Amino acid sequence: MTDIHRLTRNLHRRNDSRIVLCVSDGLGGLPMQPGGKTELETARTPNMDALARRGVTGLSVPVLPGIAPGSGPGHLGLFGYDPLKYEIGRGVLEGLGIDFDLGSNDVAIRGNFCTVDEDGIITDRRAGRINSDIGARLCEKLDTIQIPDVEVFVRHVKEYRLVVVFRAPGLGGDVDDTDPQQTGVAPIPPHGNDDASTKTAGICRYFLDRAAEILKEDAPANLLTMRGIAKKPPIPTFEEVYGTRAAAIAVYPMYRGLARLVGMDVLDAGNTLTDQMTCLERHWDEYDFFFVHFKYTDSTGEDGNFDGKVQRIEDLDSAIPAMAALNPSVFILTGDHSTPAKMKSHSAHAVPTLLVADNCRYDGSESFGESVCRTGELGQFESKYLMLHALAHAGRLDKYGA
Amino acid sequence: MTDIHRLTRNLHRRNDSRIVLCVSDGLGGLPMQPGGKTELETARTPNMDALARRGVTGLSVPVLPGIAPGSGPGHLGLFGYDPLKYEIGRGVLEGLGIDFDLGSNDVAIRGNFCTVDEDGIITDRRAGRINSDIGARLCEKLDTIQIPDVEVFVRHVKEYRLVVVFRAPGLGGDVDDTDPQQTGVAPIPPHGNDDASTKTAGICRYFLDRAAEILKEDAPANLLTMRGIAKKPPIPTFEEVYGTRAAAIAVYPMYRGLARLVGMDVLDAGNTLTDQMTCLERHWDEYDFFFVHFKYTDSTGEDGNFDGKVQRIEDLDSAIPAMAALNPSVFILTGDHSTPAKMKSHSAHAVPTLLVADNCRYDGSESFGESVCRTGELGQFESKYLMLHALAHAGRLDKYGA
Repeated sequence: MTDIHRLTRNLHRRNDSRIVLCVSDGLGGLPMQPGGKTELETARTPNMDALARRGVTGLSVPVLPGIAPGSGPGHLGLFGYDPLKYEIGRGVLEGLGIDFDLGSNDVAIRGNFCTVDEDGIITDRRAGRINSDIGARLCEKLDTIQIPDVEVFVRHVKEYRLVVVFRAPGLGGDVDDTDPQQTGVAPIPPHGNDDASTKTAGICRYFLDRAAEILKEDAPANLLTMRGIAKKPPIPTFEEVYGTRAAAIAVYPMYRGLARLVGMDVLDAGNTLTDQMTCLERHWDEYDFFFVHFKYTDSTGEDGNFDGKVQRIEDLDSAIPAMAALNPSVFILTGDHSTPAKMKSHSAHAVPTLLVADNCRYDGSESFGESVCRTGELGQFESKYLMLHALAHAGRLDKYGA
Repeated sequence: MTDIHRLTRNLHRRNDSRIVLCVSDGLGGLPMQPGGKTELETARTPNMDALARRGVTGLSVPVLPGIAPGSGPGHLGLFGYDPLKYEIGRGVLEGLGIDFDLGSNDVAIRGNFCTVDEDGIITDRRAGRINSDIGARLCEKLDTIQIPDVEVFVRHVKEYRLVVVFRAPGLGGDVDDTDPQQTGVAPIPPHGNDDASTKTAGICRYFLDRAAEILKEDAPANLLTMRGIAKKPPIPTFEEVYGTRAAAIAVYPMYRGLARLVGMDVLDAGNTLTDQMTCLERHWDEYDFFFVHFKYTDSTGEDGNFDGKVQRIEDLDSAIPAMAALNPSVFILTGDHSTPAKMKSHSAHAVPTLLVADNCRYDGSESFGESVCRTGELGQFESKYLMLHALAHAGRLDKYGA
């Protein structure tokens, strides 16, 4: 596996350039019928098309051909971190998703409230999908659990989902799930796979025993299972590997969390694209690199809503002039993966990508869409190389070797 | 080197889909003149062209750009096994080529009958290219050699070529060739490069001494040299890494052997394409994955017979409807390498590849040929990723990461 950062650590140089990486989540799509157009090709996108004429296009492969990524690996790839090297546990991602600021001594756990009978056998893995009010109240009760020498945080996510964080030095993050993935059996006792994780497993057991006492009157949610018990992986920062001061402008917490994971500052993005553009303008002089995240192309794709996704792409198109007006040295528009409305899920299809900079080798792209990108100058490339393209076009990389 | 199977082991899921991988050996070609058409582009292939309109195309790179593969690495790549990681010794390949069922305790050796003079000096490395009748008779004599605690198998291949297999626990497969690759010198005494292989080398020496006695009246074939002394590499099975029940439908033994190496069931393919199609239909409900091998596009290419290769491609085209009629979830047509008639040999040129599935991102391919594949949706990809594409399009891979 090529270590990109061994290169960039040595080659990066600083200058006054500005890079904007605009990620339209789940951007890539499919035509609903053979010979038809994708969502992006269907959308009226005069501003993206104008940029395509000034830049170069290509298709980004998030992880490997044929592999559909989750949001974690999808974004790590775009940030230049090999998603096969840096694995993010589900507990960590869940913590990032509620803006919990995970530290290096933290073990994060995704919890699911469940129902157990008097013999401790699981009868419902989601506790009847209790509503969020109940879930929040139960989390407050669990948050009172005290464990000697360990800080305990219990945070509600949604309905039956919660995050548990244990903070203490020396805890390992390799503990197996307690969720047996079926009803009719008891939860699996926590088991750590190394010395440090055995310590964590002991804390999990202690916590679960206390939780059982506290929740015993709260059926259907009278226990919880634990999944994705993990620590934040050690990830070098943008500043260290690229020499950029980077900021994230994202409405949804998970993407703020992923940005924080690589050392970006997280700005107050507001709630709308207009808010995000205002934020970008306000902080334009303070950073070299801006990650702007747009969620709704993914969520409409997940819903199987082709027309809705087309509309959301057009919404994003209308925000393009505000970004272009700032005259970034490098402007990139891409996605972390494809989410074709036809499939209602993340898919492995390569992602349309556009890069605009003064020293592009213009490839004759007349519009922005999957078919055009297929023959663009960037070719098909693994997404982990996108940051190299960005830095190179910003004049931020010295040549390699004499 | 990315371990593809570390991913697929975790991500694969089972469903009712069927995948057909049709390998037209040596499919890729070259025009005989600048501006001309390749064999595939010259052939009249209405059925392949119809599939191209329903699917996506691309160019498969068997090992690395510029590397022409043999049949072993060519097929391993298509099966998703990195051909630079899994090396198949010549002895093993020769054994596979005569349908010998090699086990994990077997050391396989390619033997060449040779002629030595009274001082043991090689005077002819191929024993005057004795005919196959003589070769077969001599192999029967050698097959009587007994070695304590070792099973010995001697099998004739063709003319002066044979396969020797030693079967015993604890034998190593790292023994140097005894063939000095020149006349006027004696064969090189067997030499093992580790303890287990030193044991194998001792067995080789014992066998060669006995062979010299047995063959001493059989000049010109009065001894043999040994090459490619090797064990079958430990290869995980299709079932384990992909979760598919896979079957091979191949007329030639070597390809059955390569399929067996990765754990496929080998079906009775008969002798013709029609037989193969009948076999495919008969076993359609029993397997998830079918490897269908067609040899003659390679052999005509090797012969430098452009028109013959065109004809063979048209023969294969006429078998396409039988495969399409079974309505596979994913149908792939590709080759293990190129064999341009112009070059009369395997070449390093990328291989035209076609994939048809419901969730293809149709790329506007109107026919199947090298020029069309150059701008297809699959791009240029290392052949080892083809199985990921196949599994993804069959809905057999979960997403990677949350």
